[in-house]
Amino acid sequence: MKPALGVCYYPEHWPEEFWAEDAALMAATGLTWVRIGEFAWSRLEPQPGKFAFDWLDRAIKTLGNAGLKVVLGTPTATPPRWMIERHPDMLAVDAQGRPRKFGSRRHYCFSHLGYREASVRIARILGERYGRNPHVQAWQIDNEYACHDTTLSYSAAAVAGFRNWLAQRYQSPDALNRAWGNVFWSMEYADFSEIDPPALTVTEPNPAHVMDWRRYSSDQVVAFNRAQAEALRPLTDAPLIHNYMGRVLDFDHFDTGADLDIASWDSYPIGFLSDRLEDGPEHKRRYLRQGDPDMQALHHDLYRAVGRGRWWVMEQQPGPVNWAPHNPAPLPGMVRLWAWEAIAHGAEAVCYFRWRQAPFAQEQMHAGLLLPDSAPAPGLAEAAQVARELATMPDIKPTQARVAILFDYPSAWAWEAQPQGADFDYFRLVSEVYRGLRKLGLNIDILPLTCADLSAYKLVLGPGLFTLPERLVAALSTYDGLAILGPRTGTRTPDFAIPVPLPPALPGFDTTIALTESLPNGAEEPLEAGGTVGRWLERLEGTAEVVERTRSGQPVLVRSGRLHYLAGWPDPEAMVRILRNACAEAGIVTTDLPDGLRISDTATHRFYINYAPEPQSHDGVTVPAAGVTWTPLP
Amino acid sequence: MKPALGVCYYPEHWPEEFWAEDAALMAATGLTWVRIGEFAWSRLEPQPGKFAFDWLDRAIKTLGNAGLKVVLGTPTATPPRWMIERHPDMLAVDAQGRPRKFGSRRHYCFSHLGYREASVRIARILGERYGRNPHVQAWQIDNEYACHDTTLSYSAAAVAGFRNWLAQRYQSPDALNRAWGNVFWSMEYADFSEIDPPALTVTEPNPAHVMDWRRYSSDQVVAFNRAQAEALRPLTDAPLIHNYMGRVLDFDHFDTGADLDIASWDSYPIGFLSDRLEDGPEHKRRYLRQGDPDMQALHHDLYRAVGRGRWWVMEQQPGPVNWAPHNPAPLPGMVRLWAWEAIAHGAEAVCYFRWRQAPFAQEQMHAGLLLPDSAPAPGLAEAAQVARELATMPDIKPTQARVAILFDYPSAWAWEAQPQGADFDYFRLVSEVYRGLRKLGLNIDILPLTCADLSAYKLVLGPGLFTLPERLVAALSTYDGLAILGPRTGTRTPDFAIPVPLPPALPGFDTTIALTESLPNGAEEPLEAGGTVGRWLERLEGTAEVVERTRSGQPVLVRSGRLHYLAGWPDPEAMVRILRNACAEAGIVTTDLPDGLRISDTATHRFYINYAPEPQSHDGVTVPAAGVTWTPLP
Amino acid sequence: MKPALGVCYYPEHWPEEFWAEDAALMAATGLTWVRIGEFAWSRLEPQPGKFAFDWLDRAIKTLGNAGLKVVLGTPTATPPRWMIERHPDMLAVDAQGRPRKFGSRRHYCFSHLGYREASVRIARILGERYGRNPHVQAWQIDNEYACHDTTLSYSAAAVAGFRNWLAQRYQSPDALNRAWGNVFWSMEYADFSEIDPPALTVTEPNPAHVMDWRRYSSDQVVAFNRAQAEALRPLTDAPLIHNYMGRVLDFDHFDTGADLDIASWDSYPIGFLSDRLEDGPEHKRRYLRQGDPDMQALHHDLYRAVGRGRWWVMEQQPGPVNWAPHNPAPLPGMVRLWAWEAIAHGAEAVCYFRWRQAPFAQEQMHAGLLLPDSAPAPGLAEAAQVARELATMPDIKPTQARVAILFDYPSAWAWEAQPQGADFDYFRLVSEVYRGLRKLGLNIDILPLTCADLSAYKLVLGPGLFTLPERLVAALSTYDGLAILGPRTGTRTPDFAIPVPLPPALPGFDTTIALTESLPNGAEEPLEAGGTVGRWLERLEGTAEVVERTRSGQPVLVRSGRLHYLAGWPDPEAMVRILRNACAEAGIVTTDLPDGLRISDTATHRFYINYAPEPQSHDGVTVPAAGVTWTPLP
Ligand SMILES: [Zn+2]
Ligand SMILES: [Zn+2]
Ligand SMILES: [Zn+2]
Repeated sequence: MKPALGVCYYPEHWPEEFWAEDAALMAATGLTWVRIGEFAWSRLEPQPGKFAFDWLDRAIKTLGNAGLKVVLGTPTATPPRWMIERHPDMLAVDAQGRPRKFGSRRHYCFSHLGYREASVRIARILGERYGRNPHVQAWQIDNEYACHDTTLSYSAAAVAGFRNWLAQRYQSPDALNRAWGNVFWSMEYADFSEIDPPALTVTEPNPAHVMDWRRYSSDQVVAFNRAQAEALRPLTDAPLIHNYMGRVLDFDHFDTGADLDIASWDSYPIGFLSDRLEDGPEHKRRYLRQGDPDMQALHHDLYRAVGRGRWWVMEQQPGPVNWAPHNPAPLPGMVRLWAWEAIAHGAEAVCYFRWRQAPFAQEQMHAGLLLPDSAPAPGLAEAAQVARELATMPDIKPTQARVAILFDYPSAWAWEAQPQGADFDYFRLVSEVYRGLRKLGLNIDILPLTCADLSAYKLVLGPGLFTLPERLVAALSTYDGLAILGPRTGTRTPDFAIPVPLPPALPGFDTTIALTESLPNGAEEPLEAGGTVGRWLERLEGTAEVVERTRSGQPVLVRSGRLHYLAGWPDPEAMVRILRNACAEAGIVTTDLPDGLRISDTATHRFYINYAPEPQSHDGVTVPAAGVTWTPLP
Repeated sequence: MKPALGVCYYPEHWPEEFWAEDAALMAATGLTWVRIGEFAWSRLEPQPGKFAFDWLDRAIKTLGNAGLKVVLGTPTATPPRWMIERHPDMLAVDAQGRPRKFGSRRHYCFSHLGYREASVRIARILGERYGRNPHVQAWQIDNEYACHDTTLSYSAAAVAGFRNWLAQRYQSPDALNRAWGNVFWSMEYADFSEIDPPALTVTEPNPAHVMDWRRYSSDQVVAFNRAQAEALRPLTDAPLIHNYMGRVLDFDHFDTGADLDIASWDSYPIGFLSDRLEDGPEHKRRYLRQGDPDMQALHHDLYRAVGRGRWWVMEQQPGPVNWAPHNPAPLPGMVRLWAWEAIAHGAEAVCYFRWRQAPFAQEQMHAGLLLPDSAPAPGLAEAAQVARELATMPDIKPTQARVAILFDYPSAWAWEAQPQGADFDYFRLVSEVYRGLRKLGLNIDILPLTCADLSAYKLVLGPGLFTLPERLVAALSTYDGLAILGPRTGTRTPDFAIPVPLPPALPGFDTTIALTESLPNGAEEPLEAGGTVGRWLERLEGTAEVVERTRSGQPVLVRSGRLHYLAGWPDPEAMVRILRNACAEAGIVTTDLPDGLRISDTATHRFYINYAPEPQSHDGVTVPAAGVTWTPLP
Repeated sequence: MKPALGVCYYPEHWPEEFWAEDAALMAATGLTWVRIGEFAWSRLEPQPGKFAFDWLDRAIKTLGNAGLKVVLGTPTATPPRWMIERHPDMLAVDAQGRPRKFGSRRHYCFSHLGYREASVRIARILGERYGRNPHVQAWQIDNEYACHDTTLSYSAAAVAGFRNWLAQRYQSPDALNRAWGNVFWSMEYADFSEIDPPALTVTEPNPAHVMDWRRYSSDQVVAFNRAQAEALRPLTDAPLIHNYMGRVLDFDHFDTGADLDIASWDSYPIGFLSDRLEDGPEHKRRYLRQGDPDMQALHHDLYRAVGRGRWWVMEQQPGPVNWAPHNPAPLPGMVRLWAWEAIAHGAEAVCYFRWRQAPFAQEQMHAGLLLPDSAPAPGLAEAAQVARELATMPDIKPTQARVAILFDYPSAWAWEAQPQGADFDYFRLVSEVYRGLRKLGLNIDILPLTCADLSAYKLVLGPGLFTLPERLVAALSTYDGLAILGPRTGTRTPDFAIPVPLPPALPGFDTTIALTESLPNGAEEPLEAGGTVGRWLERLEGTAEVVERTRSGQPVLVRSGRLHYLAGWPDPEAMVRILRNACAEAGIVTTDLPDGLRISDTATHRFYINYAPEPQSHDGVTVPAAGVTWTPLP
């Protein structure tokens, strides 16, 4: 398939006389997709039931006539002010009990059935009008679910929904009391109506209570998304997409993804480096204008899994953004690099956000491909370059990765509910495993826990998994590749209890976690073979063969056959060694990449992606700072 | 004019038999002003409508008979408990929706018209009784507006007032929607009654919405102050004063100042160093017992502007205070130094706060000139010394500064609404320009943006101005002095949009801001000529002559004729160089002062003010640690 | 008396068939006490008025038959969910006005008389059933009062209670206004019904207001505890106990202790090091798996005072806990060491918390003596070792300490209400004095301020005491030992005013505090004799003899006869020197202990307790890392 470029556009923000010229310039730049409409509800339905589609008709026609394919968004992330009048209780409520008010976006509670119905209604009306429009070749449902912490809402609708969900799940309060262990601290309920969301409790609530609340809340996002998808399905053949946000794990993307055709995500490498990564100031200074070298690739691989192979970047950072603590500009070259990196990972499309910088409202400091006065912004030339380069490339075919990481949204909820160590974070743990593999030059697949066939892979990693589903345990027990589970994997039952026999309870594997330590900075334990483990350290007992141990002799990595259990959180040195050794044994060729350089292989090419602010060389290939280059694979 | 000293006194705190002795000692110390009454409402009107003025009559007589002139305060910063009974909705409400309760002070909402009326009533009653009293020679209205974050209130009265204010300003919701750019994110309103203050929104509200809310809130302070001023005017010929707080920019002091005769401020150098300056720990340790060397002078110059030449220090720190994170004592000499510094900047009066340390209630750890047992506190002797020294001085006449800084309260609101970089702060930016000029030994005037005549100045600075009023642009275009605008100056329309053509759009000046970066610590860009720019850096395009550039060649200071635009935030080294060069070109003589030493010139004298904890010498003059000295000017 | 070991057990958490085996293993381990029942209300009274005691009958019998003595808890820290239905207003309310909800524990307001009555009822019912049961040999009332910040509640019940309490205390609003100094800022009240708890005020409330609120709140804990004690008294001869938490000073433990027979506390050395000590990261790393070397001993001595000689450790950490920011495991040996340290300080019993790790609910990561699968956890062997060692020891008789520290809960409230320096903390000040004495090898007694006979001691310390009661001043004036008061001692009247004559106003002692400085880190004043004072420094005036002074000559320690006043907060070096010199003069033999080693003497033995992670030697005795050893005293 030939990947394509696109852009996000807001015809309603500009005089109509701009549209044709904008469309022409998009096409001339080599863009083929244009996403529109996802925030335009107040212009589509200015008053309840009074619609104004003429402008959108004309906008789609203008764009289509210029040769562009439209992604049409349902505008449900921005209900108009009159909607609040109709459903005063539709606003989400925060954990402190305060309604989250109108005046920005995402001001709705996923549990509110009235608003859910209103969303389906506008989706259906749009589907009816544009579902067969030849220019509308894809749909986006809503926008960035969960962004701005909007998954969890403590509204009356959510309370009622949660109780009902619990009643469905447990059938009797006794069953719930047993499952949660409510005998502890006399927390037993006599009726589902007595149960509130876990908020404002005197000290920490029961983690089993929190876990069910997180599951319920995720399910509401899934239901909200599914309702719109079901409304659109009969009305269009175009694929349905949602644009996920970076490092958002509050709902299960595999679940929403199952109702959609393509997964997409919004990639803001520089903003994310600044506002959602734990790395230290030195790393953040080095990558200030490039973003973290692995954050984007991890999301690309994750959304390839969520989209079952089909995925896009729906919003690509084109210059400085407005929402991070500090907002520097990309190094020259990065706007091109990010697009190529996505393409190398199999993106079908990369759309820049946004076409022209809006001079008004919240995002006026967010760069576009054009300045507010329509002059070209620095990103435009780089986007055009990507388009030209793409035109000269053959189809990009994916290659099969030999390494996979098992990824699980509920594990993120579980360890948020019970970090045990203040800095234990599931995503960070997964990222550090991913980073270790990327430094070794590997392509990686992300797998959901529902995956029961691991045969494509020579090495499978499963860090930090809350529970191990039986099917997965079965798959592992017959797997002839090498697997490394842990730390903290399989340490809970689905009811959030410690299983007996004690974890990890792996098939044919004599090792149990007798004790767990969470450790502050500075209390890392050195390993015999170099590097350290810190933050998390499980004390293993049993006869399993020891592969890695601390200098004091405590086992840290043990094995039974090709199945390994890792009992601590390795530092970068130990992580890379452990992974390099595992690859060697598994028959995977690795290479040691210089700082900031990454490799991604497609079926036909090897891409060299240099996040460093200086040139890097490898295998005789020299890549300029913030550069990307590729060589044909033999 | 001969400057005078004074003191703040609370006769209601002490047995009546103390009063005459206190008054005699004040007079013997050389004090001539005594401020009273500003917190005494519960003693003046113990029950609604039941007044008790006899004690105040006697207090004023006792003080007046001792030769003291009284500043009488209206007590509206401390409404009695019964007032809340009458107006339960008069309390301010915080952004979280919680009423801010009785039990300290400033417990009222500026928007509440019932309380505003009650304030006018007590002011009128006091005016009627004391307006012609020969001992009452000045009035203070209320106390420290905005202190304790009291400008913004989200009460029902404020919501109603805001809607009405918006209706007046925009006349139609459509006009407001256009002005704010509410098409963005479907934020359009159909009626003014749909608009709330910008609080508890899901993500950031529209900055245009915030800006109007800030304007509205400032206007309520102005209206509250004006109502009392108008009540007092017909009843007295004495000047009306308000005492502003340090680094409070939440309302427009120029606007309140227009209704008053004299501006005053409350100067707590050691407390302010500790609780409201960004300087690092080394600076804060060096000036721990002195305060920052420029913070007071900047306020002196600012309030001289607010008072249109007439200004006081109404409260001067006399020893340790009680409200900063840590509260050390002034170095011996500082209580004298601070007073002389104010006088050198043109203060008509400097009043110490307070006469005798109160042994009870909130400020019991706040020093006075006397200890609670009436023994002299260390400050008393220094105050007496200033009085003796003043007696030997000729009148202090101001000299005309040759450098001015344009200062604008709305700019502070704008960049609070849209910092873009987490540490961008308008006051800090202005302070650093001011500090650079003071290190060069210069007198400075502060100018409001309404200033249309710059002819008195050879150099005008305009850092961080939200908008550039047309009159000011006109003045600059004919100005034959040297001007430096920026960074971030003129980058918005009054409606908080990016203007097109792009900023700074200065007359006859080919430069535009194509891109803006906010930068974290450690990401400063070195300049060719030394020093760095950091925190904020605008990328300029155009043909304007480049005066300063980064080592990578990016323009940082450009000019067209004598008008300059500065595109970044200089570090201290670069700041001083840029200012020194500008002064040289403008024909202003500068000098490089040793660390902590400052110079202030009057028409007749040069004052050397040494904030350093060790002696400093300059021009053959040696000033002891924490000392001040002066030499006649030729 | 022969000290004993015990354990906390939850029969309701386990299948009944486990009980006998558990009991047998407890006995075999050498445990003699077992605490049960304190969280079991929902199992004792599953529905209002429907009791289920049969299981508890059987559990007690099973445990008793195994030779164990039962401590039976009243379950009032965990009211069942149905109780909230009966008393919807029984929940505590936080300072922000939010009810603190069901779903964990301690969800009640001490002021709520309905819940207080319900607590008395369940206590009485339990007393009636088990008060004469031969196996029930002690009672615990409630659990960890104040834990999770539960002393202060702003509920309607608390507001009403507070007003009534104030009316009782002051009889008239005028008296209250005078006592609090409400003339300041017009805060005068006309009626008790106008007074709210001090919360959400615009700026700080009157500290006198806060102090009475703290006294009121403490009194409610006392009343709550007394009500249960009075219900149980006629029904049992077994001693009544409460288990206090570490570093909780929110209510007056001496007051609750007066209604009980034995004081106990819950000792979690590693958790406390991590979450409630101010020491720097180096200290915290060194003692990561041991806890602070003085924190436990200080509490042991404190609770010996609270229990008037009779005290226990009711919960002893047996391994990692679940609630601190990080939760490492104890070094091998610490589970033994902690028990012996308590015993050396006179504990009658040390009970481990808990028997078997619960695999469910909030504390599933909290270690027990057994793992969730009933395998022994590392702590079990150490507990058994202590039991064996105890069996070979003669009775442990206390020795009389020669040094005492005066300790006062209201002082903690006072300086929380008025820290004046951000890091002034009463407990920290006392701890640092205590640590200095312990480094010198001394046994210490803690004394309440009601103590009027100091004759047993050669040295008495009184740091940071809010007020000095007259009886204590009288005792000091005839005391022939050496006393050191200060800093900040006796600086307020009971009404929270600065006394005149000025403090410290000690008998026959010409020194007054003329000025007080609070100082940030880095602003310490060096002392002539070495070390520094920082954080707090009072400037003394008067003719008293100076013992220690700053290098600049300012007196820091002054004396009149054997009574000393210390005017600053010494660093560790100065603290130890001052204490060593005082001991030398007082005729107390001191010794300088190596880092982490501590000595505790009983009547017959000297215990060497080594908190260090390496062996330490002293007096020819070498103690292994995390070890404890003892030698007979001559
Ligand atoms: Zn977006
Ligand atoms: Zn003041
Ligand atoms: Zn406990």
